[in-house]
Amino acid sequence: MSELILKGELAKKASYKLSNLSSAAKNEGLKKIAEALVKKEKEIIGANAKDVESARAKGVTGALLDRLTLNSKRIASMSEGLMQIISLPDPVGEVISMWKRPNGLQIGQKRVPLGVIGIIYEARPNVTVDAAGLCIKAGNAVVLRGGSEAINSNKTIVGIIGEALKEAAFPEGAVQLVEDTSRETAVEMMKLNKYIDVLIPRGGAGLIQSVVQNSTIPVIETGVGNCHVYVDRESDLDMAEKIIINAKTSRPGVCNAAETLLVDEAIAQAFIPRALKALSDLKVEIRGCEKTRDLFMGAKVAVEEDWYKEYLDYILAVKVVSGIDEAIEHINKYGSKHSEAIVTTSYSKSQRFLQEIDAAAVYVNASTRFTDGFEFGFGAEIGISTQKLHARGPMGLKELTSIKYIVYGEGQIR
Amino acid sequence: MSELILKGELAKKASYKLSNLSSAAKNEGLKKIAEALVKKEKEIIGANAKDVESARAKGVTGALLDRLTLNSKRIASMSEGLMQIISLPDPVGEVISMWKRPNGLQIGQKRVPLGVIGIIYEARPNVTVDAAGLCIKAGNAVVLRGGSEAINSNKTIVGIIGEALKEAAFPEGAVQLVEDTSRETAVEMMKLNKYIDVLIPRGGAGLIQSVVQNSTIPVIETGVGNCHVYVDRESDLDMAEKIIINAKTSRPGVCNAAETLLVDEAIAQAFIPRALKALSDLKVEIRGCEKTRDLFMGAKVAVEEDWYKEYLDYILAVKVVSGIDEAIEHINKYGSKHSEAIVTTSYSKSQRFLQEIDAAAVYVNASTRFTDGFEFGFGAEIGISTQKLHARGPMGLKELTSIKYIVYGEGQIR
Repeated sequence: MSELILKGELAKKASYKLSNLSSAAKNEGLKKIAEALVKKEKEIIGANAKDVESARAKGVTGALLDRLTLNSKRIASMSEGLMQIISLPDPVGEVISMWKRPNGLQIGQKRVPLGVIGIIYEARPNVTVDAAGLCIKAGNAVVLRGGSEAINSNKTIVGIIGEALKEAAFPEGAVQLVEDTSRETAVEMMKLNKYIDVLIPRGGAGLIQSVVQNSTIPVIETGVGNCHVYVDRESDLDMAEKIIINAKTSRPGVCNAAETLLVDEAIAQAFIPRALKALSDLKVEIRGCEKTRDLFMGAKVAVEEDWYKEYLDYILAVKVVSGIDEAIEHINKYGSKHSEAIVTTSYSKSQRFLQEIDAAAVYVNASTRFTDGFEFGFGAEIGISTQKLHARGPMGLKELTSIKYIVYGEGQIR
Repeated sequence: MSELILKGELAKKASYKLSNLSSAAKNEGLKKIAEALVKKEKEIIGANAKDVESARAKGVTGALLDRLTLNSKRIASMSEGLMQIISLPDPVGEVISMWKRPNGLQIGQKRVPLGVIGIIYEARPNVTVDAAGLCIKAGNAVVLRGGSEAINSNKTIVGIIGEALKEAAFPEGAVQLVEDTSRETAVEMMKLNKYIDVLIPRGGAGLIQSVVQNSTIPVIETGVGNCHVYVDRESDLDMAEKIIINAKTSRPGVCNAAETLLVDEAIAQAFIPRALKALSDLKVEIRGCEKTRDLFMGAKVAVEEDWYKEYLDYILAVKVVSGIDEAIEHINKYGSKHSEAIVTTSYSKSQRFLQEIDAAAVYVNASTRFTDGFEFGFGAEIGISTQKLHARGPMGLKELTSIKYIVYGEGQIR
């Protein structure tokens, strides 16, 4: 039997035991992992050095290499992340509602773990710890398939997790790593419906599309964010400037950063020169429509493709629109349904935007950058869902659960 | 462009308008359809007669032919079904919760339609009306792909729906039928991620598996039910007999009917002869394990495959188990995670069964036949989900919605 089937079977078995663990037992396991990671940081850093070295040999540099690299501080932060997960309330076992039918049946809707969660992700080894921690806390077994670039780091980390969980008397197979990082094995994993209940890809658009295209297991699509800020003719232009600067430049490489600025034509002359000057001063490249370029000489030409792009970089597309109707139409056409913001002082336009924009998070007078598990108050997140099924927006512990109906009878027949 | 892409585009456009319709407007549309169906019943029966004739020519008989056939009474019942949907509360627009963050942001979780729902189903033309009614009430556009056997009935019904909705000033494309019933077109539909948000197959195991295997659109798996009744050593045997008779024979062709009876060995001698005699008298074929056959001569041999089977017929597999541990293990291994029942007077065993059985609905001392939207009090259902993502168990109007976060700010940046 393949590595995957063996691991899948083991994970499924473990999931039944995990679903019955108390919150105290789960927290104890998480604590043991948090302690072991810090205690064995040298081991982790040693394994990570091999990954970093082979990445360098392949010519990887800059942000990618940085994301792969682990040090004491980063390991401590992974460990702290687990301590935060321990402090979150356990969603499992909550009876969300219970009602009595005329025939006397009492029907309750109870929160239960999803079962086995598969995570397919790219080079960041901290995802290994985050994802494992969240899955365990919600009572799920997890099968991790990280990228080949981080395989040594991931093997060591998952080894440490396994030992820690064994000490805490967890079932074997609660957290497993797919060690064969070939594409064929990834595709095999995407079709393991018998053992894996849900697949969550974490990474770039290419990875996510590959999982959506190949998986027969239910997938939660995460992450791609082509987010917009629309500045209405009735708005506080100082506020608007602060919001677009924050949404674009506070962390351009993340999915909730803004990629396109839409400006109402009635205030284009007043807003575009000042806002784009400020953004340019912050090293943002502007790609504008014709009207934008008439008002700001430094802008390059935006082509049709730019409206679809998630730059994840110091680049902003800018378009002058005739008003809120065109803004809504543009966003619903080109956006990725992640996070969208309007800046306005108009009550009716704020309501229309909230109602008519089809996205996970819709903002009035705030930066798109707030779409995040911590910022929303969920404490931690496994990703940001951009699909409409099951979960939308930041996914915390609740989104890693399902429900079942529990029915109390006294011999009722139909 | 293909029929499908045109219909998909139209549906997507319609979905934005539908998501903004008031409950009153949606109810008005449903009322117009309900009236039109009854008014034009001759037209429908005429079209249906063609379908019935070609089915007969192909040798279709019995239950299948019966399900395809429409008459005045059945059309009236389709129309009444719509009136019931009108009476249900509209789930769209509800703000499920709203909270304030330390930075002053107010974040609300609001119920919104899913968008465009695709339904792929088999020969029953009443599904056309049911599904359209539920989707519309929850603010969704719907693309229907029925089987070739019912194409004339479906064309006529969807034509009537379209006219009725036009009268009620609904957007064009709210309810559409895929008229090309080839397999290729069905597979093309399963990959129409750009326009269809969710796919719900309704039909037999073959259809559902084909959709799960081929679709790149998120799917809600419905329907396959290999349901069990476990009779514990501590139980009221009269109650147990009534429950298994009801679960097996009240409607054997539906997914919540029982397919396997598990009997605790401690009461096997007392229960098996009487219960299986009663079932046999009701024309139920028994397929038993060795111990069962020792206690009931009329039983045929059950082979390994029988434990996996959804007979949908007057057949019951029977197995003697050593107690609740083996019962739980058997059900979690062979069951389809639909509906499972224990008959017991033991508090601790009832709790263990509710906790450890992994299924959409778990019953203590009641028939599995209650897993149904009406019986649960949801008023109507689009199907019974056997997956864990998004919806589990009977899916009513709420399960045809998603959520979005609405965020009220005053210029907050991060």
